[in-house]
Amino acid sequence: MTGREFFTARTVSEALTGFRPSRRTPVEPVALANLWRRVPAVHVTAPDALPGFARSTVDGFAVRAADTYGASEGLPSYLELAGALRMGVAPTMAVPPGGCLAIPTGAALPDGADAVVMVEYTAETMPGTIEVTRPVAPGAGVVAANEDVAAGAVLVAAGRPLRAAELGLLAAAGVTAVDVHARPRVAIISTGDELVSPSTPKLAAGEVRDATGSALAGLVLESGGEPLLAGIVPDDREALEDRLAGVLTDADLVVVSAGSSVGARDETALAVAALGEIWCHGLAIKPGKPTLLAECAGVPLIGLPGNPLSALVVFRLVGVPLVWRLAGCEVPPPEPTVSARLSRDVASAAGRLDVVQVAVNGGLAEPLYGPSALLSVLTRADGYIVVPEAATGLDGGRQVEVILYR
Amino acid sequence: MTGREFFTARTVSEALTGFRPSRRTPVEPVALANLWRRVPAVHVTAPDALPGFARSTVDGFAVRAADTYGASEGLPSYLELAGALRMGVAPTMAVPPGGCLAIPTGAALPDGADAVVMVEYTAETMPGTIEVTRPVAPGAGVVAANEDVAAGAVLVAAGRPLRAAELGLLAAAGVTAVDVHARPRVAIISTGDELVSPSTPKLAAGEVRDATGSALAGLVLESGGEPLLAGIVPDDREALEDRLAGVLTDADLVVVSAGSSVGARDETALAVAALGEIWCHGLAIKPGKPTLLAECAGVPLIGLPGNPLSALVVFRLVGVPLVWRLAGCEVPPPEPTVSARLSRDVASAAGRLDVVQVAVNGGLAEPLYGPSALLSVLTRADGYIVVPEAATGLDGGRQVEVILYR
Repeated sequence: MTGREFFTARTVSEALTGFRPSRRTPVEPVALANLWRRVPAVHVTAPDALPGFARSTVDGFAVRAADTYGASEGLPSYLELAGALRMGVAPTMAVPPGGCLAIPTGAALPDGADAVVMVEYTAETMPGTIEVTRPVAPGAGVVAANEDVAAGAVLVAAGRPLRAAELGLLAAAGVTAVDVHARPRVAIISTGDELVSPSTPKLAAGEVRDATGSALAGLVLESGGEPLLAGIVPDDREALEDRLAGVLTDADLVVVSAGSSVGARDETALAVAALGEIWCHGLAIKPGKPTLLAECAGVPLIGLPGNPLSALVVFRLVGVPLVWRLAGCEVPPPEPTVSARLSRDVASAAGRLDVVQVAVNGGLAEPLYGPSALLSVLTRADGYIVVPEAATGLDGGRQVEVILYR
Repeated sequence: MTGREFFTARTVSEALTGFRPSRRTPVEPVALANLWRRVPAVHVTAPDALPGFARSTVDGFAVRAADTYGASEGLPSYLELAGALRMGVAPTMAVPPGGCLAIPTGAALPDGADAVVMVEYTAETMPGTIEVTRPVAPGAGVVAANEDVAAGAVLVAAGRPLRAAELGLLAAAGVTAVDVHARPRVAIISTGDELVSPSTPKLAAGEVRDATGSALAGLVLESGGEPLLAGIVPDDREALEDRLAGVLTDADLVVVSAGSSVGARDETALAVAALGEIWCHGLAIKPGKPTLLAECAGVPLIGLPGNPLSALVVFRLVGVPLVWRLAGCEVPPPEPTVSARLSRDVASAAGRLDVVQVAVNGGLAEPLYGPSALLSVLTRADGYIVVPEAATGLDGGRQVEVILYR
């Protein structure tokens, strides 16, 4: 990054591939109960094989498979019932040749046995003797001691947010804490002479409550981060510079929703330039053109447009992947989508990514328009569609992929 | 619900439409910063119109639109610049006939003005005189005082989990707390003589660490609930009945991952029947057939199969929507999906819902099989496909919708 790039405008794909600060959050041990969606910092391996012993997968009889060969309904094998096994305890008996042991699903396979015959293919016509009416191969009805996981194999991979199933596998392996990346702390600063706190009960004419800060905090939570609401700063370069310097020591990412007037935007850029390097000023996206990406003292910074809708569009596309990456996750969890038919033509300009809010009803995606100052456009939307940089628009009637809000 | 239905088996769709306990969690006020994904118990309306005053949407000049009619590049309108407006304060000047006021994006429209001309269509060729080269209609460049939300209109609807955009709208309206349903407390009981705590460092032969409890806790968090790990109970009817009675006073939903052997399952059903009414015992789903749905003292209860994979499949399909409903949300947030080509034939039986774990690579969905005792099948899966009850299988090569884990 060099000063020469101060006023460089970029495409969104350039920003996603090119603006990749190396910062990662510190690593901390976290207990199993709190690991959902956290990102392991290292591969976690299995201390021992799982399940650790050969287990029956059915209710039935542990046998030597060879004793059942040739068995049929007409000519069953007769095996001597030597006893019954219980769950949770090591077998105290072995299966003798020509014998069997009753075994419940999940119990440990006893010595001597190499298969389990399902109870459905057996009958106890005489007390103490089990008729087997189907042959079994060695290994039938059994999971091997290392069939779920081998000792030393990777249980959960570094960089992949933990899902419910992984929590189960960690529990099964007796791993009750994992070193994960700390949740990225995202400082959110709102600037604008017109802005007042959401807790202001009555507004004077010209005053506006800060909506963007609260909405961005929601998106930060959605991406696994920890929002730090760093308050409202007037459109004043020095005041913003002071506030930025204050949060840089405590944040992994700084987000500034800048004043939306031209003058206010320039003040933001100058304040940021005083503290670090601007990577781009201007993004080929609509809405959201006046976006600024920078790095200050090793902390990435996103300067967002002042109006809430544009700010949220840009943060979702550029900020959310960055929050995940700060936590060590290169591929964020998938977002819900739905295929729908576009209700009418959508115009766009080549070379610019257009993000269009849509309502989805009965398989139809209806574009929602309105000044980007309106939050209600966003609250009425079920999701959005993207008109790629190369396209000059989308024809009504075609199928589009809607990325759904959740 | 009657005792006669004790052993009734049901389809998954019957369960989703027919098993609808009326319980809802209590309502509690929650502050704006903690409202993400929470479910409002009532419609929240706007105390005042938003933005509350007419605002400029562009940088430019506030004018009387009639003063610009007929303006063109060749024959501009000349307007006297009467001053400049500032952000955040009420205009102290009005626009006189034949005059204009400089106005930044977002500032309040002054008296006298009914439109804003973008700065791009103006020039100040003589100090104090603004040339306007394009006519504007009344309302151009302006959002009306109630254009975002009218006073008394619904800001956020009851029963819909709050998304980032709604948090912004609430903030804009000065609503800093909302009455939402409490997070459903989901008690999770694991039963089985073989089960020991995940914190057990070394297993004896036959012992298994409880994986299902931790995995279910993850799914409960994913659905907005609060997991209460209620421990491990041996396969003993009285012990289970005691534990159930203990958690029923403190839970909104009870989940029992029952022993997977036939005998253990019957013990669970008998313990549950002693405390409430069984709605169904047996679900036409694979894996997951030995599922039990019941209601005990007004608390819904799900008895899950004992093996982790089946338990998680059933809880995702039947339990997750129930957790959302307990919180007052009838339509859970959308899940991520992807369309992929099935790599090979999948067999199924008519009348039964089949859930098949798949890995997705390069647009190909590869079914993953293995004993349902294996957790690694689930951790290797990117998602699952559903073979509907009416189908007898899916042909390899066809496009399928994969519901992705996240």
